[in-house]
Amino acid sequence: MSTNAAGSATTATTATAPAAVDYTALARSARAAGRAMQTASLATRNAALTALKQHLATHRDEIARANAANLAEARTMVASGSLSESTFKRLDLMGDKDAKWHALLEGVDDVVGLPDPTNKVTLATKLDDGLELYRVTCPIGVLLIIFEARPEVVVQISALAIKSGNAVILKGGKEASATLRALHAQVQAALASVNLPRDAVTLIEGRDAVQALLDQDKYIDVVIPRGSASLVRHIKDSTRIPVLGHADGLCSVYIDAESDVDMAARIAVDSKTNYPAACNAAETLLVNEKVVKSGGWAKVIAPALLSAGVTLKCDEATLAALRTNDATAAAITRGQVVPATPADFDTEFLSLTIAVRVVTDVHAAMAHIHEHGSGHTEAIVTSNAETAETFLRGVDAAGAYWNASTRFADGFRYGFGAEIGVSTNKTHARGPVGLEGLVIYKYRVVGKGQTVAEYAAPGGRKYLHEPIAVTEAVQKRFSH
Amino acid sequence: MSTNAAGSATTATTATAPAAVDYTALARSARAAGRAMQTASLATRNAALTALKQHLATHRDEIARANAANLAEARTMVASGSLSESTFKRLDLMGDKDAKWHALLEGVDDVVGLPDPTNKVTLATKLDDGLELYRVTCPIGVLLIIFEARPEVVVQISALAIKSGNAVILKGGKEASATLRALHAQVQAALASVNLPRDAVTLIEGRDAVQALLDQDKYIDVVIPRGSASLVRHIKDSTRIPVLGHADGLCSVYIDAESDVDMAARIAVDSKTNYPAACNAAETLLVNEKVVKSGGWAKVIAPALLSAGVTLKCDEATLAALRTNDATAAAITRGQVVPATPADFDTEFLSLTIAVRVVTDVHAAMAHIHEHGSGHTEAIVTSNAETAETFLRGVDAAGAYWNASTRFADGFRYGFGAEIGVSTNKTHARGPVGLEGLVIYKYRVVGKGQTVAEYAAPGGRKYLHEPIAVTEAVQKRFSH
Repeated sequence: MSTNAAGSATTATTATAPAAVDYTALARSARAAGRAMQTASLATRNAALTALKQHLATHRDEIARANAANLAEARTMVASGSLSESTFKRLDLMGDKDAKWHALLEGVDDVVGLPDPTNKVTLATKLDDGLELYRVTCPIGVLLIIFEARPEVVVQISALAIKSGNAVILKGGKEASATLRALHAQVQAALASVNLPRDAVTLIEGRDAVQALLDQDKYIDVVIPRGSASLVRHIKDSTRIPVLGHADGLCSVYIDAESDVDMAARIAVDSKTNYPAACNAAETLLVNEKVVKSGGWAKVIAPALLSAGVTLKCDEATLAALRTNDATAAAITRGQVVPATPADFDTEFLSLTIAVRVVTDVHAAMAHIHEHGSGHTEAIVTSNAETAETFLRGVDAAGAYWNASTRFADGFRYGFGAEIGVSTNKTHARGPVGLEGLVIYKYRVVGKGQTVAEYAAPGGRKYLHEPIAVTEAVQKRFSH
Repeated sequence: MSTNAAGSATTATTATAPAAVDYTALARSARAAGRAMQTASLATRNAALTALKQHLATHRDEIARANAANLAEARTMVASGSLSESTFKRLDLMGDKDAKWHALLEGVDDVVGLPDPTNKVTLATKLDDGLELYRVTCPIGVLLIIFEARPEVVVQISALAIKSGNAVILKGGKEASATLRALHAQVQAALASVNLPRDAVTLIEGRDAVQALLDQDKYIDVVIPRGSASLVRHIKDSTRIPVLGHADGLCSVYIDAESDVDMAARIAVDSKTNYPAACNAAETLLVNEKVVKSGGWAKVIAPALLSAGVTLKCDEATLAALRTNDATAAAITRGQVVPATPADFDTEFLSLTIAVRVVTDVHAAMAHIHEHGSGHTEAIVTSNAETAETFLRGVDAAGAYWNASTRFADGFRYGFGAEIGVSTNKTHARGPVGLEGLVIYKYRVVGKGQTVAEYAAPGGRKYLHEPIAVTEAVQKRFSH
């Protein structure tokens, strides 16, 4: 790619023969753009976002036409059975009489309103008189986002990348191609309108592009795959670049011996049925043996799940209890309650099905979760604060919940204002990832010519290591 | 590995045939131990450290004998040329009349005195009345540390892992084997003495072990290689587990047009010569063309470096300037100043050699650093605050320094009290990594039975998203 910055992205997005695109050059351009973004002021970054909203509004019809073209093609694919109805729906950018479109534009405004995640002083130490250390947040650099179907992701992710001072390379699905290009053109126009590099947001197409970019660990700092578990696993296996995300979302709800069974039923139903295809939906229900013995399971919790249309895959004890109750026995007869196989406890059903098992106590529940869970979100229902604390502290997951539905695990519900994904990683960002997950930090040392030798010499200078209070005035020196 | 927790590590450390060790089982045991460490109170973790110091002191002679055996063997290897004198020196645990040993024991005490990196509330939000969100730091889980030569690393890393509530698998060099085992035995005894699992610190041997463990991404959360650039690169290429560390340390010092040349000379000399083998030593000197023209380079900076015994590999402009000055011309004649090759600017010399290049301004300096640097530590010498700010904000590195030696990039000098390594990663921990790099966080949600459906319904409940002040009282609920 020997063309200029603006040209390179165009080459990438319009190339028909993948061999024509030099992905190393493309990634290098993104790196250069990322370094320029690193120095952009908050005012400039917000101006780019405001321009983005305006550009999108002005070009609404053009984008709608591109989307209509994708939808027309997709409609024939649905008819021939090569595309699902749900994928088709997600393609529609102007759905609900433009409500989706307006929500998208408002979303860009919301990002303008979020605080700057960069240039925040998170540590300040006086190493010695006239020798100060500051840890200051800064953009990570270059993000590679791989997503499927929903074209509005281009706008949402671009907004988050611009706000956080990162460059981003976006790879979307082929079926949304025309819509993605139309949206991307406006993102680049908005960047150019405030003199930010167009290559700060690059759109690529084609499956070949993915592997070529996964090899660019010199220029790309993090990969965020948003899609199926198999996509995420494939990407983790194929790159040295850190991957932020989650393959599985195998969440559990544990109902303790000391619990309000009505609350337990409510939480189990919401966790399972509110949106079964979500990664934060519950897939496993762990019931304390006392709740089975007391009848809470057979008389309250199971009937609530069955009424909500849930199929129960039960271990022996929880199944046996349901035989003793007429209503639930009928559910066994009609096949809405079936015996669980061992594999059911490792399955992300993503549908109105849940695996159910009896456990002796909170420790057994955690042992089950640690053996079968994915470290996403785990809930306990209990009225005993000590048992809750054992669970909240001991369970190894991004979310540990006490008396609340697992479905709360979401960047918007957490108040982050935006979400770039959900991570089950043990490093960097864990759980719902907002703008804070897109920054790292650098250490600034400010001296007056000091050398290490002066401090190492016998009788030499001594380090003070006094904390510097990060007052508004101190912070202000970095925020601009 | 079907033996108990204590037995499993012993099996690993005493196995002579690598095939006898089941590394999956070993990693799984470490994971289980890590989960137990996760719930250990600060008091218990500190008690383990205090016990460790006592056990080491009590078993000093036994450890010294093991070390003497390693040294005797190493001495013959030095004689035959198969081991370097510097590696030999680093093997000596009781060097300087036990001063090294006593410093090691004091180091364990220092870790007891450090604040708990876990159970810190870093975000608290009232999602709604009776529905609260807390982000609380917690151990990462299982660390794999691969190191060379220095046996005291076993004690230092064990102390940091115990303090931060992590389990750790340690792989040291063969030449220190007896010493490592003797130290490790005391670490495990200390853990057992406070009822923490012995498998929280596992010692392994043999090269085969490394690859077998790099495959255990289900059980190991982060790998920290401490060793040569080739070791680090090999590990990054061989695992899906996140790697925390740095391959290269190619640091630069840029001397701006507006700078005090005496200060510049002082910083250049310290950055290069204070400890040339360190990763934070400068390898490249970038000199503003005005400093070359003014004579500051030929008359002050270059002579200072030459007097300190540094060999200068110069580009044309900086070399030409040295011909105009008698003293420096003599250095050219005796070969202490030589022309630079392009490769010199990509070389980590790790010796008293530095590559020198002229640049037009701070932007050219940053462009050079971004093309050739390793993102470790970069310094600017300037009296112009605006130029400094351009550099500090724009340079993409873990450390950005103004008028200070690159050699300050170190966990102890930063006041972290301890250092597990230095990272040039762009995610998780960057720069010198202390205890904070060994923790991640989890989100705790505490409710009263709330469901997401209540908030999604038209006219339903609204999220408040009010910040909760993290007072001492709030923090105290989590610190125990």
